[in-house]
Amino acid sequence: MLVVQKYGGTSVKDVERIGNVAKKAIDYKNRGDDVIVVVSAMSGETDRLLNLAGKITTFPDDREVDTLISTGEQVTSALLAITLKSMGHDAVSILGYQARIITDSSFGKARIDDIEKEKIVSELKKGKIVVVPGFQGVDKEGNITTLGRGGSDTTAVALAASLKADLCEIYTDVDGVYTTDPNICEKARRLDTISYDEMLEMASLGAKVLQIRSVEFAKKYSVPLMVKSSLVEGKGTLVCNKEEVMSMEKVVISGITYSKNEAKITVIKLPDKPGMAAKIFTVLSDSNIVVDIIVQNVSHADTTDITFTVAKPDAKKAFKIMEDVVKEIGADSVKIDENIAKVSIVGLGMISHSGIASKMFSVLADEGINIEAITTSEIKISCVLENKYGELAVRALHKAFGLDAADIVEEK
Amino acid sequence: MLVVQKYGGTSVKDVERIGNVAKKAIDYKNRGDDVIVVVSAMSGETDRLLNLAGKITTFPDDREVDTLISTGEQVTSALLAITLKSMGHDAVSILGYQARIITDSSFGKARIDDIEKEKIVSELKKGKIVVVPGFQGVDKEGNITTLGRGGSDTTAVALAASLKADLCEIYTDVDGVYTTDPNICEKARRLDTISYDEMLEMASLGAKVLQIRSVEFAKKYSVPLMVKSSLVEGKGTLVCNKEEVMSMEKVVISGITYSKNEAKITVIKLPDKPGMAAKIFTVLSDSNIVVDIIVQNVSHADTTDITFTVAKPDAKKAFKIMEDVVKEIGADSVKIDENIAKVSIVGLGMISHSGIASKMFSVLADEGINIEAITTSEIKISCVLENKYGELAVRALHKAFGLDAADIVEEK
Repeated sequence: MLVVQKYGGTSVKDVERIGNVAKKAIDYKNRGDDVIVVVSAMSGETDRLLNLAGKITTFPDDREVDTLISTGEQVTSALLAITLKSMGHDAVSILGYQARIITDSSFGKARIDDIEKEKIVSELKKGKIVVVPGFQGVDKEGNITTLGRGGSDTTAVALAASLKADLCEIYTDVDGVYTTDPNICEKARRLDTISYDEMLEMASLGAKVLQIRSVEFAKKYSVPLMVKSSLVEGKGTLVCNKEEVMSMEKVVISGITYSKNEAKITVIKLPDKPGMAAKIFTVLSDSNIVVDIIVQNVSHADTTDITFTVAKPDAKKAFKIMEDVVKEIGADSVKIDENIAKVSIVGLGMISHSGIASKMFSVLADEGINIEAITTSEIKISCVLENKYGELAVRALHKAFGLDAADIVEEK
Repeated sequence: MLVVQKYGGTSVKDVERIGNVAKKAIDYKNRGDDVIVVVSAMSGETDRLLNLAGKITTFPDDREVDTLISTGEQVTSALLAITLKSMGHDAVSILGYQARIITDSSFGKARIDDIEKEKIVSELKKGKIVVVPGFQGVDKEGNITTLGRGGSDTTAVALAASLKADLCEIYTDVDGVYTTDPNICEKARRLDTISYDEMLEMASLGAKVLQIRSVEFAKKYSVPLMVKSSLVEGKGTLVCNKEEVMSMEKVVISGITYSKNEAKITVIKLPDKPGMAAKIFTVLSDSNIVVDIIVQNVSHADTTDITFTVAKPDAKKAFKIMEDVVKEIGADSVKIDENIAKVSIVGLGMISHSGIASKMFSVLADEGINIEAITTSEIKISCVLENKYGELAVRALHKAFGLDAADIVEEK
């Protein structure tokens, strides 16, 4: 079968680690697989290069920054190919422009339009292990582009999709996707499987294992993703289609996420007439402020309150903008609260299970935690809480929904 | 006019130095020139990358090493383009494969076959300063190649030739070509002009200012080369066509070179019959040993002696090979001497001046220096001496041929 393996920066941080990567690729090759290895820059290298540019100017040219930082992955690719060949296995590095990973020209955050896979296929047919630098592509004019931080995951998934690989393995410094952050809840446990949609919720809600775009890509092309540790042997977590997951694992809730990187803004006593919400969010959008949760309650006496959350770095700016908007539209006032946490439960299972929401609210109530805002989707429920209760909420929910490691063992 | 400027590693060793390079390029542009800047890797970077490969294996794959080390020049190019743009001047980096610097596939020592100059020309026409990484090219299959150590000089000259530049400036850490090594002879002085042929002799005999191939290239395409310091303002040395030099400067001898990196091997009492010399030098050539000077004297009693010099690292190997050859061809014995120096006088003028050789030999004799071997070409005379007399010989010849700085001043 054809396997794409992707290794992050800590997995290739020195020539010893690169040696481990080479051994693993050769193992797969020896058992009969075709192998493509996608590598990140050695850890610290991208920052080193960005710092050089930052010493010159605060706003370095986008195109040239991509030419600059793409060297990080190029160096790792060449070193890995050298290592593979020194171990007696034929290998070749194929850079972004050589592999014809064609992107648009949005330097620093380019999107892959196409991969002309002939070059890679022909090298695989010669029995070579193909090494491709992640994160980089080339636009139609031949300029080097990069895909944004974490873009190496996207490179791996795009190659797997384009070449119809049987599996895309993402090697990182954790051994899989966890039910929640093990630093907050010591009973967090590794999931054997998770669906693309759940993974997307987990990723966007704060789990840092996979880049969101790579999961979207994997979902779109049904590429099975295996998240594994490059440091210890283990089963990892398979991210795959919903149906497969449902048949494999019958849990309602897959994980609990926790984020304290948002602030909550409330517009009070907004006139309850058409166009008010549109006005607020158009102004924010025009200022490039991304809004996460939006909650509007039923109105009382011709006014209503709207609460929304934004990323903390944008909070003060959003608040200032709202102060002006409030006057303009005749609302009463605006409040900001930066001491909030967002705790979410994620699970495909909740679509077909009743009582999940009420159970979540009861658990929080039992701990004496007040819920400040609620938002739901088909596969997640998020509650905004006072920040100081965030970690307590995670642990209580983790236990209540049967995710604690000990509970699982008892069930077996 | 169109000017190609090339800056070596010490001239771009940090972002401050890169800033100086940018200022100089903008100066030229502002006075109305079109400017192409060719840059080396930041000093130490190529060695850092080679050391990484060397930690993996003693013999890293040639193709991958070129992919690895070409990143050094790529980084400098991007940083310089970022600097130029931050100073308000439009600029663009064009890498070897983007500039279509087409080479053969001899990784690590590739030769330039062609430059498809359209891309560079079109960017120059837009008023941009074009930055090109030196040292790198691309072969017909799209593999990255490098031109060998010092190859950035060759890139600059090749671009100047291809684009019919009016001048190619080589910025380095010395302010020009000197009559001899200033470390040996404090009266050494900078030459205003030197011919391509003299420069080739100077370069191959030990002066380290310019890469030999770049001078050959410049001669072939009549590219005027200006060697200048990137650190101090100065006139530099113009390397150009013989006729121009002769009319500009009427000196017989341009410089004295000195090398102690060779060893001398003598085959004694070789049978004086056809094929003997061929046998010796075929065997050496088959072992990839490059021979420099070869001297054979007239024969006595049906035998002759042949003396040759080789680079010191090859000396012991060459000596062992000769011990076998001596038995095979019936010569008497073989001797090796590693304590030698080669001192040469170089000058176009000597073609039309009699008495140069005898003057050289007299000067050495007056200092009590014995000459062990002599070889001559149209524009140079080299003498092999005992190593300990090397520096003394340089100083004595420098004075005798009127090259001392003080003498020049007196003449004016």
